[in-house]
Amino acid sequence: MTPEAYGALEARFRRLSLLGEASRLLEWDCAALMPRRGAAARAEQLTELTLIRHELLRDPTLADLLDSAENEVLDSWQSANLATMRRRWQHALAVSADLHEAETRAALACETAWREARPANDFSGLAPLLTEVVRLAREVATVKGEVLGCTPYDALLDQWDAGLRAADFEDLFARLARDLPQLVATVAERQAAEPPPRLPNGPFAAADQQRLAERLMAAVGFPAEHGRLDTSRHPFSSGTPEDLRITTRYDEDDFTSAIMAVLHETGHALYDYGLPREWRYQPVGEALGMSVHESQSLIIEMQACRGRAFMTFAAPLMREAFGGEGEAWSADNLYRLQARVAPSLIRVDADEVTYPLHILLRTRLERLLIAGELEVSDLPGAWAEGMRDDLGIVPPDDRDGCLQDIHWVEGIFGYFPTYTLGAVTAAQLFQAARRAVPELETALGEGDFRPLLGWLGKNVHAHASSLDARALVTCATGRPLDADDFETHLRARYLAD
Amino acid sequence: MTPEAYGALEARFRRLSLLGEASRLLEWDCAALMPRRGAAARAEQLTELTLIRHELLRDPTLADLLDSAENEVLDSWQSANLATMRRRWQHALAVSADLHEAETRAALACETAWREARPANDFSGLAPLLTEVVRLAREVATVKGEVLGCTPYDALLDQWDAGLRAADFEDLFARLARDLPQLVATVAERQAAEPPPRLPNGPFAAADQQRLAERLMAAVGFPAEHGRLDTSRHPFSSGTPEDLRITTRYDEDDFTSAIMAVLHETGHALYDYGLPREWRYQPVGEALGMSVHESQSLIIEMQACRGRAFMTFAAPLMREAFGGEGEAWSADNLYRLQARVAPSLIRVDADEVTYPLHILLRTRLERLLIAGELEVSDLPGAWAEGMRDDLGIVPPDDRDGCLQDIHWVEGIFGYFPTYTLGAVTAAQLFQAARRAVPELETALGEGDFRPLLGWLGKNVHAHASSLDARALVTCATGRPLDADDFETHLRARYLAD
Repeated sequence: MTPEAYGALEARFRRLSLLGEASRLLEWDCAALMPRRGAAARAEQLTELTLIRHELLRDPTLADLLDSAENEVLDSWQSANLATMRRRWQHALAVSADLHEAETRAALACETAWREARPANDFSGLAPLLTEVVRLAREVATVKGEVLGCTPYDALLDQWDAGLRAADFEDLFARLARDLPQLVATVAERQAAEPPPRLPNGPFAAADQQRLAERLMAAVGFPAEHGRLDTSRHPFSSGTPEDLRITTRYDEDDFTSAIMAVLHETGHALYDYGLPREWRYQPVGEALGMSVHESQSLIIEMQACRGRAFMTFAAPLMREAFGGEGEAWSADNLYRLQARVAPSLIRVDADEVTYPLHILLRTRLERLLIAGELEVSDLPGAWAEGMRDDLGIVPPDDRDGCLQDIHWVEGIFGYFPTYTLGAVTAAQLFQAARRAVPELETALGEGDFRPLLGWLGKNVHAHASSLDARALVTCATGRPLDADDFETHLRARYLAD
Repeated sequence: MTPEAYGALEARFRRLSLLGEASRLLEWDCAALMPRRGAAARAEQLTELTLIRHELLRDPTLADLLDSAENEVLDSWQSANLATMRRRWQHALAVSADLHEAETRAALACETAWREARPANDFSGLAPLLTEVVRLAREVATVKGEVLGCTPYDALLDQWDAGLRAADFEDLFARLARDLPQLVATVAERQAAEPPPRLPNGPFAAADQQRLAERLMAAVGFPAEHGRLDTSRHPFSSGTPEDLRITTRYDEDDFTSAIMAVLHETGHALYDYGLPREWRYQPVGEALGMSVHESQSLIIEMQACRGRAFMTFAAPLMREAFGGEGEAWSADNLYRLQARVAPSLIRVDADEVTYPLHILLRTRLERLLIAGELEVSDLPGAWAEGMRDDLGIVPPDDRDGCLQDIHWVEGIFGYFPTYTLGAVTAAQLFQAARRAVPELETALGEGDFRPLLGWLGKNVHAHASSLDARALVTCATGRPLDADDFETHLRARYLAD
């Protein structure tokens, strides 16, 4: 029999989970389908759902139940569930209803303004709204840090990856900061000396791209009867394990951008799909934080699908999808086309080698912003300087500089590091999977992802949130996270042949 | 300044309204897009949202606020708002949380089984689940009747049209029961003596039908930037005033079915769009019950768009949409094609003259079911008998007989009469509008709906729920609802020329 207090907590968190799913569908619809002028009304709906969830978490009787449940006899998953519940309660408890509403509304106002300010390159117009978002983020970080017993910035990290602290990745990021610029230079030099890969000739009709994307999703293992592929401005993955929603956008001149985005999002979706059904609707049954989530998209996209083996399988399908002919459609050419490295201004368009440098810059700047050591008005200068130092290029304007990302605008701080932790985790997990499953690479060459997914299912998906990301990596790979496999992977892909 | 208790009630009902909007989007998505195997998880989300709304309405402090607000100084709209709040509270108060959950889950189980049972013509397989739905509906009707001080069946009517009682429409329905069978026979005889209208030759590609539908929606006044047209098994209208969602389905052999459905749903959508913005999110600011809602779809579809004037405008657009040629595409032929009358088995496919006979049968049977004077096991026999008596045809099986509608299966009783009340209301409103706006008919012939919508906006939409449906009809037309204009309309359309 389920212990009484613990059982009551399960019922409450089930409700929170279902409300969260409703919000996710409203957000998905907003990005994928909604008429633009429905935005203000949708924001009201989403804000209200957020407030209700926040109130449910701050309900005074919840604290009593958490304390009572500590004295009940629980099995290990129940204990982990209780710990996750307590952490969520702490995050909510720290933030008063007023502060929560102020934060939500400031982010909404700033995001709305940003949608105009970015194309207009109007940083100074946005600055007052962004300053307010940063001010509230500092306040939230401070109160959360007090409740969680950590620094303000660590408290923000903890929102996206439970238990993550800046100290966990400082050495790793320092190593990447030291090694990557040199690697970028070496790869660029080598690629400049080779004949460049050829771009297949378009245009590539969106409908043909979508059919190809669905064919490749199916190969990777996306359950078509449990999901949809739609279109949005930025690709993303959402939904529930029973109803996975992924999106992409189609460039009629370059089909590979949509296809690679779909494969990336398919990795996210397969993680959600693989979570243990018996813990559905409970915090412990949800995906672990964003570092591991990103590792699951990148293991599919970067480790598997951009590799030579998979491209051998995919190239004929690509050629067939568009009725292509000639050398541009060879597996070798398409592989090399995906392996171009060059410093660029925009994070979301960056290649695998330069991408972490974009993240290191953002992580450095957001830590300063939260610590009060950098003000919003100084952001454009600090950004330009960072780009010059790390990537050797300077944005000509703020549109392609510090205005490019939505994260800070939406009040999201402490999220950026999870992209690079995800990339590094993906490399370490993939190496472990290859060691454990010798036929894995051969299978990928035949478009068969079952060996890889079988290993991920057992070593990642099945654990859900029953242990933290650090423990998960150690269990799955035999050692704590480090940059060895990631750097080895980069050298193998970009310098070996 | 807003009075205190009343102001607190506004805040609570605003939350209820926003939760209702979230549910509507989840339902829309379920019908329009959702992968079929997402159904069970979606049902969990919707059930939880329903339970939360039910709990909010049953919150003990709400009763105190309602009483306190009675003693505050309110203007007339605030008073009407308070009365609507009290009525909703009464409906929720009557039904315990357990009964509400039992009702919700029984309906869900029955609906799921019906989706298999109907195509399989398996009434006896469904009967136990439907018996449970009916049993719970009787219980709900009884407890609501006690709280509202009316009969059980009246309490169910009150859910869909505030204040509606069976006594309000008994004479009207008796008159239709007396007059319509004779009218059907006369029209059928006359149409049999004429050369039949010609069906334009298809197939009509769904994409072409959709473009035509969007063209005609725009003519009627649907604000494209505030809505979408999608596809679902049954056409419906949902969404919010800022984000109207209508659906249809396309028959490649007969484009008129999709087009007429779209025009019907556009009428619903324009009502929501025309509601007063200053009462957004409050009960008094919502559309009045389903009788008036249906009148708004039927005034657009039946009164305006199936009339000769509009067909003069629409026929060339229809011909152009499909590249049609010849006499089949003349306004006269297309008008006559839409005016065929013949008794048929399926309500949703019925013409305007026989449709009320389907409703009279259902109304009679559901009253007996709720009163305990008819059992589910006797439904197929009673249905066949009623069809023979009222329409002169007998369904060959239950699939096209008592299994055809989803309403009872979903636990929806007391709703059917609103279809015919809507049709009769539409006729009476349209006559009043024509008297008040002489240029209305000429404008429809030019595809200009502004005169009609201007009148509806002022006489229907602007009132929202500030008065009941009976009062609204009297105010707008100068007399209480009766069947005169409806019968005059039917004779004019089907016998006059």
